[in-house]
Amino acid sequence: MDKYRHIKLKRDSREHMYIQLFNAIRGLIEKNVIKSDDKLPPIRKLAELLDINNVTVVKAYDLLESKGYVYKKVGSGTFVSDKRMDSNFIATYEDGEEEIYKSLKLMDRGQIQIKDNMINFASATPTPELFPVEDFKDVLNEVLDRDKGLAFGYQASKGYYPLRESITKYLEAYNINTSVENIQIISGAQQGIDVISKALLNYGDTVIVESPTYTGAIATFKSRGVRIYEVPTNEEGIDLDVLEDYFKKHNPKLIYTMPNFHNPTGYSYSSQKKKRFLELAYKYNVIVIEDDYLSDLNFYTKENMTLKSMDNNENVIYIKSFSKIFMPGLRLGFLIVPLKLNNDILAAKHTSDISTSGLIQRAFDLYLRKDIWKKHIIYMKKIYKERFDTMIDSLEKLMPEEVLWGNPKGGINFWIGLPHGFSASELYTESINKNVVFVPGGVFYPSGKDNRFLRLSIAAVYPKDIEKGIEILSDTINKYIKKEDTNYLSKENSYKPIL
Amino acid sequence: MDKYRHIKLKRDSREHMYIQLFNAIRGLIEKNVIKSDDKLPPIRKLAELLDINNVTVVKAYDLLESKGYVYKKVGSGTFVSDKRMDSNFIATYEDGEEEIYKSLKLMDRGQIQIKDNMINFASATPTPELFPVEDFKDVLNEVLDRDKGLAFGYQASKGYYPLRESITKYLEAYNINTSVENIQIISGAQQGIDVISKALLNYGDTVIVESPTYTGAIATFKSRGVRIYEVPTNEEGIDLDVLEDYFKKHNPKLIYTMPNFHNPTGYSYSSQKKKRFLELAYKYNVIVIEDDYLSDLNFYTKENMTLKSMDNNENVIYIKSFSKIFMPGLRLGFLIVPLKLNNDILAAKHTSDISTSGLIQRAFDLYLRKDIWKKHIIYMKKIYKERFDTMIDSLEKLMPEEVLWGNPKGGINFWIGLPHGFSASELYTESINKNVVFVPGGVFYPSGKDNRFLRLSIAAVYPKDIEKGIEILSDTINKYIKKEDTNYLSKENSYKPIL
Repeated sequence: MDKYRHIKLKRDSREHMYIQLFNAIRGLIEKNVIKSDDKLPPIRKLAELLDINNVTVVKAYDLLESKGYVYKKVGSGTFVSDKRMDSNFIATYEDGEEEIYKSLKLMDRGQIQIKDNMINFASATPTPELFPVEDFKDVLNEVLDRDKGLAFGYQASKGYYPLRESITKYLEAYNINTSVENIQIISGAQQGIDVISKALLNYGDTVIVESPTYTGAIATFKSRGVRIYEVPTNEEGIDLDVLEDYFKKHNPKLIYTMPNFHNPTGYSYSSQKKKRFLELAYKYNVIVIEDDYLSDLNFYTKENMTLKSMDNNENVIYIKSFSKIFMPGLRLGFLIVPLKLNNDILAAKHTSDISTSGLIQRAFDLYLRKDIWKKHIIYMKKIYKERFDTMIDSLEKLMPEEVLWGNPKGGINFWIGLPHGFSASELYTESINKNVVFVPGGVFYPSGKDNRFLRLSIAAVYPKDIEKGIEILSDTINKYIKKEDTNYLSKENSYKPIL
Repeated sequence: MDKYRHIKLKRDSREHMYIQLFNAIRGLIEKNVIKSDDKLPPIRKLAELLDINNVTVVKAYDLLESKGYVYKKVGSGTFVSDKRMDSNFIATYEDGEEEIYKSLKLMDRGQIQIKDNMINFASATPTPELFPVEDFKDVLNEVLDRDKGLAFGYQASKGYYPLRESITKYLEAYNINTSVENIQIISGAQQGIDVISKALLNYGDTVIVESPTYTGAIATFKSRGVRIYEVPTNEEGIDLDVLEDYFKKHNPKLIYTMPNFHNPTGYSYSSQKKKRFLELAYKYNVIVIEDDYLSDLNFYTKENMTLKSMDNNENVIYIKSFSKIFMPGLRLGFLIVPLKLNNDILAAKHTSDISTSGLIQRAFDLYLRKDIWKKHIIYMKKIYKERFDTMIDSLEKLMPEEVLWGNPKGGINFWIGLPHGFSASELYTESINKNVVFVPGGVFYPSGKDNRFLRLSIAAVYPKDIEKGIEILSDTINKYIKKEDTNYLSKENSYKPIL
């Protein structure tokens, strides 16, 4: 408690007391006076010490939690988060190249150990040899010869007009009818989430996400100081009853969703569920952010339509990145924005980076106009389907029966549940010594805490390595199970994970 | 008052009353129930109507103001801002190309009238024929042949390591000694401001800016929900007495400054002032954001050293864009970050757009390593100096004596003060009909309100057009002066602007 004794709050300040307390404790965390996993004082005790109301402490703790400074454990209290670890995780798993390891090593946290020769189930990004480099070099040079200096001027914040045109044509192949006015160019999906947040979210607003969900979305929402509510999502998609309940109770501004081949789980909503989902969002006046992660990579379902293609009420903002199916280094994607939100989104994009590279926009426009993209998507589907099938086969053949996994119909992600009592980070530590790496599932929850789930992605692994990697993981898990047998075997059902 | 009657506030809510009121009024503004320049109810009346404390209304109005929803006029009350107009202005004046006008026309606000044949003093961006396109095409192709797919993978969020290396070498030419670890790559200066804000600012924090200052910085700070205090800045640079006073009173987190050839005024601090400025910031524990807009473009001073080169306490974050001196379409720049802030800045960059285009980073790295950049800077200085000198000559020769202007020693911007009683937006309306366009000064203040200052930039105007443009402006102003003579001439000193 001694560390909290020196906190000074001013009753006559313009600043509300709980904000002052929030800032004071944040200061202690940032200055490392209180450290990761340190427990914060019980509410009543801190209130007594500082001679303030319990409610003020509760509010300050809530705010610290919503900003990711602390986490709560039911029944045991509030603890300081390991912020830096989070950002390390995020950086590792989304980046594809060796430089990231160099720069992350500079952080000297010792967690980053991915090496070139590893079997990398962590990366959700295609490997460079799959990129359409030659085709893209051709369009780049064509643009430079055609546009010269214009290719290096500021582009409109909204995006290069001809590209926005050719995107509306590209979208026809996906049954989305929209107009050039609705298209906002962005520097990748992450920026899309960031720009939408900036335009629509104010401090104290509420956002709903699927649980689990994309780490980058969580980080962005947290940075806006909003409340995040998680709705359980399983193989059938999001739980609509809980969703409606939260819509009623929490009056959210928006919901962020990946209804097809979801990241990290690979799950999809049925058509029926998508329809109902849209109805509910419209009824309760909640804007839907649809992150179309990979609806293109459909292998075994007829229900991979996007929410946007079903959106009759202009209530969906659609995000599409070109990173996963073309090349991440383009840093290019687009939003489909309902007209009523156009100006706010444009202003937010402008304050973010003024505009996306005109050279890349012009080159990609040519790439779309020449219909080269279709050929590439067919190629990528062929490559990924082989990996996908190998993954299913390997899991079925090699995984111990105590391990469960979802049954995705497309995409690149598999969500694995370890037997109750095992944590993904334990498995991570073991398997990285055997040159296999994946993403522990905890990072896909706002709390960021370790649990027994993990994500395996096939984007960066050759078929033969998929089988080898799953074999190594299975062996490691089997050893655990044997070791723990004497302790746990008697407890029935203890191995049954809920997926 | 009728429009406010339906506001419902809950006393038992987790949300503080003034936040509820803020959200309610924001709703009225966003739904256009109350419109631009509508007056908000007097504080006491609204408090009575809703049966709440006066202070709650004051706090809600303050919050609305800090977020740009309303503005205050001393003595007459609080009024709804024209938000959309702001974003239009920003988008126009920073973008350089015809597509922007297309997309802005879609907004259908009728304010955008810049055409190709106009004398464009508004743009602060070089015109495309000045870009080193051929050189850059060469390095692009060299990178594509050398790195193939790697050029299109995710780059590290921190930036491409070799580029960060070559930037430290480039900086030696500017007397800045720093290490690769301090360099953070960004997608242009605007993103730099955005990323720093995300990393360091929390809702309710305080930021200090020069007055006037860069519109894009204002917009970003506003979007973080911080309080912005403006310190008067004139030909001598920032007012250090006011600055110290604000440091003491308002406990700011950071100060944003352009100490060399400032935007929009062109002013610079003396070495003495820079030294004292750094001392004060360090003493009061305020982080300095130095936006090195154009210290390279020095024509007539020996005092264009950067704050960073004088920063002995690792208290300056330095922002450098390559847009103004190389090509804006690169969307490339860098930060020099004090080591203690490294992780926070990296995490903020990651949530913004994961990473900056690897292709552009690799090409620019080659461009620096081959020392081609030096040649280009010499070329640009020659071009700009001719324009700069022509501007000075034209202003001296042609402007009515009632008009004052600053006396910059370099850069591209001139800050013009009209005689008292004339507004820049009046002049704007007149002169755009005569095919001359500039930026009215109001946009460079957080209030965004019209005043009698304007910015003339020479970046996009040929010398012969500079003279012609100033002639047209002078004629227009002279006509005003004559027309107003009968009204104003008797009022002595009424023409003297304070610069």
